[in-house]
Amino acid sequence: MTHFSFELTHRDAGSLARRGVFVTPHGPVQTPGFMPVGTQGTVKGVTIDQVAATGAHMILGNTYHLALRPGHETVRKLGGLHGMTRWEGPILTDSGGFQVFSLDAINHVDEEAATFRSHLDGSIVRLTPEHSIEIQESLGSDVAMVLDHVVALPAEKDIVQDAMERSIRWARRCLESATRDDQAKFAIVQGGLDVELRIQCARELAAMDFEGFAVGGLSVGEPPTEMYRITEATTPELPENKPRYLMGVGTPVDLIESVARGIDLFDCVMPTRNGRNGLAFTDSGSIKLRNAVHREDTSPLQESCPCIACRHSRGYLRHLFHAKEMLGPILLSIHNLTYYQQVMAETRAAIEQNRFNQYVAEKKQGWGIDA
Amino acid sequence: MTHFSFELTHRDAGSLARRGVFVTPHGPVQTPGFMPVGTQGTVKGVTIDQVAATGAHMILGNTYHLALRPGHETVRKLGGLHGMTRWEGPILTDSGGFQVFSLDAINHVDEEAATFRSHLDGSIVRLTPEHSIEIQESLGSDVAMVLDHVVALPAEKDIVQDAMERSIRWARRCLESATRDDQAKFAIVQGGLDVELRIQCARELAAMDFEGFAVGGLSVGEPPTEMYRITEATTPELPENKPRYLMGVGTPVDLIESVARGIDLFDCVMPTRNGRNGLAFTDSGSIKLRNAVHREDTSPLQESCPCIACRHSRGYLRHLFHAKEMLGPILLSIHNLTYYQQVMAETRAAIEQNRFNQYVAEKKQGWGIDA
Ligand SMILES: [Zn+2]
Ligand SMILES: [Zn+2]
Repeated sequence: MTHFSFELTHRDAGSLARRGVFVTPHGPVQTPGFMPVGTQGTVKGVTIDQVAATGAHMILGNTYHLALRPGHETVRKLGGLHGMTRWEGPILTDSGGFQVFSLDAINHVDEEAATFRSHLDGSIVRLTPEHSIEIQESLGSDVAMVLDHVVALPAEKDIVQDAMERSIRWARRCLESATRDDQAKFAIVQGGLDVELRIQCARELAAMDFEGFAVGGLSVGEPPTEMYRITEATTPELPENKPRYLMGVGTPVDLIESVARGIDLFDCVMPTRNGRNGLAFTDSGSIKLRNAVHREDTSPLQESCPCIACRHSRGYLRHLFHAKEMLGPILLSIHNLTYYQQVMAETRAAIEQNRFNQYVAEKKQGWGIDA
Repeated sequence: MTHFSFELTHRDAGSLARRGVFVTPHGPVQTPGFMPVGTQGTVKGVTIDQVAATGAHMILGNTYHLALRPGHETVRKLGGLHGMTRWEGPILTDSGGFQVFSLDAINHVDEEAATFRSHLDGSIVRLTPEHSIEIQESLGSDVAMVLDHVVALPAEKDIVQDAMERSIRWARRCLESATRDDQAKFAIVQGGLDVELRIQCARELAAMDFEGFAVGGLSVGEPPTEMYRITEATTPELPENKPRYLMGVGTPVDLIESVARGIDLFDCVMPTRNGRNGLAFTDSGSIKLRNAVHREDTSPLQESCPCIACRHSRGYLRHLFHAKEMLGPILLSIHNLTYYQQVMAETRAAIEQNRFNQYVAEKKQGWGIDA
């Protein structure tokens, strides 16, 4: 346990928001923090030095995608995810559980393993908790997620409960099969939209020796209010002195609403996916760059944004999208990732100054979201 | 003429290769030099700071494309090409002549203008020499190319001669209509593969007051030996004290073979286009990154290359192409542009040291090209 630590440096006076530092073998992660997603060993459209320049501390890789292509043994021979990508900071890898859930062609879960059909060549793959950890050890991430059983919502309570209980058993198998002490293991709380199941799951996982805890199975189509309800019911059941990670979330307002409910870490494809589609996040809400109103607009996406996209005019960025130039998606991905990191930096400062609720209210006003 | 100068600082002892400095309002261009192509106001897939990091001194923009989209008035309102792209060095714009030739759907040339159908909306566009200069003045480039009449090869001599003579008349009209003295005008020598016509054209243009001269209408499918033959017949007819630009050329060996024949400037889409297709230039010849042999190759594309692609392994770059990740085209474009600039930097050093022929022989040996 000497490789990892988590220190809470400040608690906001008016909410459950926490300010902390999660230390890994590849350096510290300031929390609350946002992890850009590098599904296939690259944050889409962005070079690794550009990722660092956005202010990101930690990035995410996907066990499922990398195990299928190029294969985790190839990743290992190429120096692991760090050697391949040249990212010098910490990396977290998911377990494959969510991809098995979201990409299911054939998708069967039994007590031993999740079985699915590869989206690349149609071959049948069986992923056990032990295999997921073995893959993540080959990838060489700083944080490995346990394999979990995610179910589509809404679902009958007995189905949700069955998957939740299996997720706990699989979490223990992951912990027991792990061989690297330079890789932290994070458990994942399941239980759908049922508070009782979530609390039960959180308590059972909290009793095990994990370096961190995630809230999983959310942001799968339920209303934000439901996500907030489950999050605020779950975090009080998790250890105070361990980082809490809300998986796959979300919009800027989702991030700060969840920080207010005690979450420390996030990941989401939204900044890069929306960026590729010509949608930019700003303090005044999101902007559709393709719109004609931006044709001769000489202003940047966001005043005072330090990113390289904001050295250009909106008119130029609009032109790049209309001309189908790669530079449009590249620059908007960089801007959106920078914007997310700026929101996280402001969040950390606001917590330290005990004015986080005020910060949330101000941001929501700018974004045009009712309090 | 105070805004521009060209100084020949050294001539190679064993060839026609020249070492010079072309000074523009946006700074100097060391020659021989290579201009990355930014057709639509962006070097495809590469941010402007990454373009600068490749070592490029001057970039190229396309009058035809930018006039159609976003429109040269919009470019002007967005600060010209410099204001839009944030490129701080010199920019050269072509005249549209080559695009009228290469994209012809409907394409009619009479004494007044080139008439063609827009590839964007099918509308009929008439481009006169005066209009081409007016557009380039709106774009705000440091160097404007004259509108020329390019013909497909092979062609009957009278057709080639007719287009060549029209190109001379159009060159004069461009010179006479220009209003900006902070924009240099470069003439373009035409004449197909006919040495007699090329010499006649070069002499007539050389008598006019241009800041530089281009050899145009080559690299359109003829064998390299034909291109070299025309180039070496043309350059002796051009003023010694003005830069010479071979348009649309070429492979690395084309560049150095043409430098040996007295050429100072080049542009070509090859580094970026080939990069997007997974082909990398190296001192050992070109590499197809998709090939299976690179799967677990931990070596970089090119030892000692300073580019960010060469911080990664060939195995990782191969993975990016197989996973259809944007980062593959991005990194290979950067590498190839850097490689071209490295060849130009080596070329300049070899000329200064009077060992250019030896340099050419060494490079060709590495590339596997018979002397
Ligand atoms: Zn920005
Ligand atoms: Zn390189």
